Amino acid sequence: MRASQYFIPTLKEAPAEAEVPSHIFLIRAGYIRQLAAGLYEYLPLGFRVLKKIENIIRKYMDDAGALEVLLPILTPAELWQETGRWDVYGKELFRVEDRKGRLFALGPTHEETITDLVRKNIRSYKDLPKNFYQIQTKFRDEARPRYGLIRGREFLMKDAYSFDVSEEMAVKSYETMKETYRKIFDELGFDYLMVEADTGAIGGKFSHEFVVKVPNGEAHIVYCEKCGYAANIEAAKYEFELDKLPPEEEKPLEKVHTPSVSSVEDVSRFLGVDSKKIVKTLVYILDDGTAVAVLIRGDRELNETKLINYFNAIDAHLASSEELERLGIVEGFVGPIGLNIPVYADVSVKDLHNFVVGANEKDYHFINVNIPRDFKPVDFVDFSTAKEGDPCPVCKSPLKEATGLEVGHIFLLGTKYSESMKAYFVDKDGREKPIIMGCYGIGVSRLMAAAVEQNHDENGIIWPESIAPFKLHILALNIKDNQIKDIAEKIYDEAKKLGVEVLYDDRDISPGAKFKDADLIGIPYRVVVGKKVKEGKVEFQERKTGNKEEIEIDKINELLKRLL
Amino acid sequence: MRASQYFIPTLKEAPAEAEVPSHIFLIRAGYIRQLAAGLYEYLPLGFRVLKKIENIIRKYMDDAGALEVLLPILTPAELWQETGRWDVYGKELFRVEDRKGRLFALGPTHEETITDLVRKNIRSYKDLPKNFYQIQTKFRDEARPRYGLIRGREFLMKDAYSFDVSEEMAVKSYETMKETYRKIFDELGFDYLMVEADTGAIGGKFSHEFVVKVPNGEAHIVYCEKCGYAANIEAAKYEFELDKLPPEEEKPLEKVHTPSVSSVEDVSRFLGVDSKKIVKTLVYILDDGTAVAVLIRGDRELNETKLINYFNAIDAHLASSEELERLGIVEGFVGPIGLNIPVYADVSVKDLHNFVVGANEKDYHFINVNIPRDFKPVDFVDFSTAKEGDPCPVCKSPLKEATGLEVGHIFLLGTKYSESMKAYFVDKDGREKPIIMGCYGIGVSRLMAAAVEQNHDENGIIWPESIAPFKLHILALNIKDNQIKDIAEKIYDEAKKLGVEVLYDDRDISPGAKFKDADLIGIPYRVVVGKKVKEGKVEFQERKTGNKEEIEIDKINELLKRLL
Repeated sequence: MRASQYFIPTLKEAPAEAEVPSHIFLIRAGYIRQLAAGLYEYLPLGFRVLKKIENIIRKYMDDAGALEVLLPILTPAELWQETGRWDVYGKELFRVEDRKGRLFALGPTHEETITDLVRKNIRSYKDLPKNFYQIQTKFRDEARPRYGLIRGREFLMKDAYSFDVSEEMAVKSYETMKETYRKIFDELGFDYLMVEADTGAIGGKFSHEFVVKVPNGEAHIVYCEKCGYAANIEAAKYEFELDKLPPEEEKPLEKVHTPSVSSVEDVSRFLGVDSKKIVKTLVYILDDGTAVAVLIRGDRELNETKLINYFNAIDAHLASSEELERLGIVEGFVGPIGLNIPVYADVSVKDLHNFVVGANEKDYHFINVNIPRDFKPVDFVDFSTAKEGDPCPVCKSPLKEATGLEVGHIFLLGTKYSESMKAYFVDKDGREKPIIMGCYGIGVSRLMAAAVEQNHDENGIIWPESIAPFKLHILALNIKDNQIKDIAEKIYDEAKKLGVEVLYDDRDISPGAKFKDADLIGIPYRVVVGKKVKEGKVEFQERKTGNKEEIEIDKINELLKRLL
Repeated sequence: MRASQYFIPTLKEAPAEAEVPSHIFLIRAGYIRQLAAGLYEYLPLGFRVLKKIENIIRKYMDDAGALEVLLPILTPAELWQETGRWDVYGKELFRVEDRKGRLFALGPTHEETITDLVRKNIRSYKDLPKNFYQIQTKFRDEARPRYGLIRGREFLMKDAYSFDVSEEMAVKSYETMKETYRKIFDELGFDYLMVEADTGAIGGKFSHEFVVKVPNGEAHIVYCEKCGYAANIEAAKYEFELDKLPPEEEKPLEKVHTPSVSSVEDVSRFLGVDSKKIVKTLVYILDDGTAVAVLIRGDRELNETKLINYFNAIDAHLASSEELERLGIVEGFVGPIGLNIPVYADVSVKDLHNFVVGANEKDYHFINVNIPRDFKPVDFVDFSTAKEGDPCPVCKSPLKEATGLEVGHIFLLGTKYSESMKAYFVDKDGREKPIIMGCYGIGVSRLMAAAVEQNHDENGIIWPESIAPFKLHILALNIKDNQIKDIAEKIYDEAKKLGVEVLYDDRDISPGAKFKDADLIGIPYRVVVGKKVKEGKVEFQERKTGNKEEIEIDKINELLKRLL
């Protein structure tokens, strides 16, 4: 492709809202443009990368026996109502009304649609297993679309759905997808982790995320370098037995005056007690309006996802001052003793002795609190957020923390959708049973951003070869010099003939501008045709390493063949 | 692909609403399923055909130098408002409100979006010409979605947009696309016509449609077998000079009593006058509320598209009884003499003598009316619908009528969008000028239906080779017979190894059911492995001709190679 006839509108400056490298460089290098918040246009270069990612995914999905389909983007409200997700999805679901007043969602995912297809067309165990996938534009009305392609409102996804006759077979399908995902992310050249994850709004039995490691990524993970345990922070466990304090003899309960002292830090300082012995009492309001109190040790953070999952809630929030007042609870001094709502405790509170809690009375705390002497929680539950240094739940080595981008997510759904939508099959024994499902997503457009996050320097993008828009970039440094031009054209023709994907910068601009653009665009290999042609030489450069090598022009064919 | 592991849910009966062959067979043969009115799911077979069509289009678009991009489906209302199409599109535009109350359209076409991209990124004549295209899901909230993929609400389109520095260059781009379209439709194997077309809601200077000929198609065209003139009925001309009646001497105007006689037929019979001399006066209300009267000879039909275009209206409708009453016009006896609204005449009325018109008085007509003696129309305009037998406007031979499916439409837009959206470039002479645009659409999913409309028999589909989901269908007639199975498996493996796209019916069902399914599915070639394997033979069949040929098993390789 000749740059003069192509469309690569590079920019010296990124727009002000671009904060992360992928957003900055994909715009500056002319891969994408923003149409509106969270809506991006893929320019020719961007489109090429997108297609390459898509084709790698398609190859491995086909190899795994998954069948490609294409489902409508407009999905009838009735299907979403059958599973209750018309409400669950809330504001993230773009909703459309047609001319006759019927409601549709712009599909953010297609469990309902594919389950509907399957229940209408699959009846027998003989028709199973099946795994259907599609590569399709998805929609999510994000509250804060940002980071370019990382958190958009319209994006390209690969979504797949497996249907099996038994839990055992479903796990097999799940494992096949796990392996397929590994192959895909390996071929894409990512540094990634497969982590245990929360199932969230998709639901199901268990799930894994594939997280590309990047600094300041939105996904927080903990992982164990020793045994390989890795989990999203929302789902991460730790070995809490090792985190316990030594047993103590119980002292008598005492109410103490703690004027205007509420935070763990302040209480700890005021009473001279280790923060591990201050127990926070957090009041949460679940989405059905229920108020619950959750106890957690002062040195640990509550994990809201674990809380939401435990209570089988859709959402939950920390009670506001008004809500506490309405409940008759004293803000800043809440405690479990004599509280008028159910009290649950994190495992960190188990076997804790002589601890401090609020006294449900302004400016007072209880000290030397002990369970079960002074109160009894309904249950002890793992509500804690794991953190760096916590003992690994598997091998007990200290956990590490990292951030990244979630680029894939797989779920063993079980019968969540097949039961609510009545997707049954007749088994060998003649009995009707719900089909066991799994679902498997990859963020195709997000992968493009993730690749840039992991592969760039201060001058621009450094594409992994597997998804680079072109393999070779020819720069004719002075196109008005006939000798330079002739050689460049010859190399370009040769490369095309051999089938090397090549971008040829034949524009009449300065060498400096060409180098700047080439660095920005990030094509892996470069042939620079400049003054050295007089000596029968061109320069071969590698974007990644910066390595430069002089090449005899008559040996260019060998070089081009090496690139294939 | 093994049928036992694939997903081809064939049906004995098509759903009741399926009226046309493509709708019936694509559903029965397991290519598509309906999710909701006008919304279709592409099952694995359907997806394969869709991709093949897409790839043929892509190949020729790339060859023509067009650059592939991908624009968002959600397009901001503000862009549509700039060109006025937010209102023009009316109920056909699916509109979406986001969580912040901003309005978007689900793109039915992308002139606004691409023009916005170009105005923001192209400044100089050096950056032109450009032709951008995409293959993308489009949306149109059809009042009556029907005929399966032919008139859906969500469909796959290839849309392209050319940008040029001058009208001359734009015409060149237009001609390139015309040729490209011919190549595409030729390779797809269609019997089609390129016809002059109306520009409709897209607008612009001129346009052509590519119409695949099918009986009872929605597109009505006239064409000349002699000179090749062809036009959509909405835009078709005819040589009206040849249709004129011979001149006559003017007779005196007379008002005659015609009790309860209003239709052309009745007036003709009642007065004993040829219907060519009865002139209809039609009252139309334009979208801005203006009422106009249009005269046309009794034997001709008015063409509403021509009328709408002449008045530069968005829409127009025949006045209702209430509207006529409000205007003080006597229904059934309207005439141009003394009428209180502007009167326009079709060219068929020009040089007509001693004709009959309504007298604007109940139960009365004027006879022996003559122009300009008795009244003077504002203008004579071609408002007629051309019809079979009319003289060709180019060579005067009799025109033919046909119906078909519009599968491609190209427009020379001129500056309609660039002016309203201020997409200017700086020309060589340093002056700012509006970019000259063209736009070019192909209905990708509709092509799939069109192919079936043109290629089927009573038993099912007969795919053209270029877009068949598989090239070869192997039927193992009795999979329980080990010899049959072994040979079938061997041929299947061989075909795969050679790269023949093959579907292998390895299901344990009756031979009859296999043949029925194979006819329905319509794969071009078939190898039937049955009892003849004992004699070392299989049968080779061609779906299109029904030809059958016995083949020695050890010569199967030659056959397979022939298929490549």
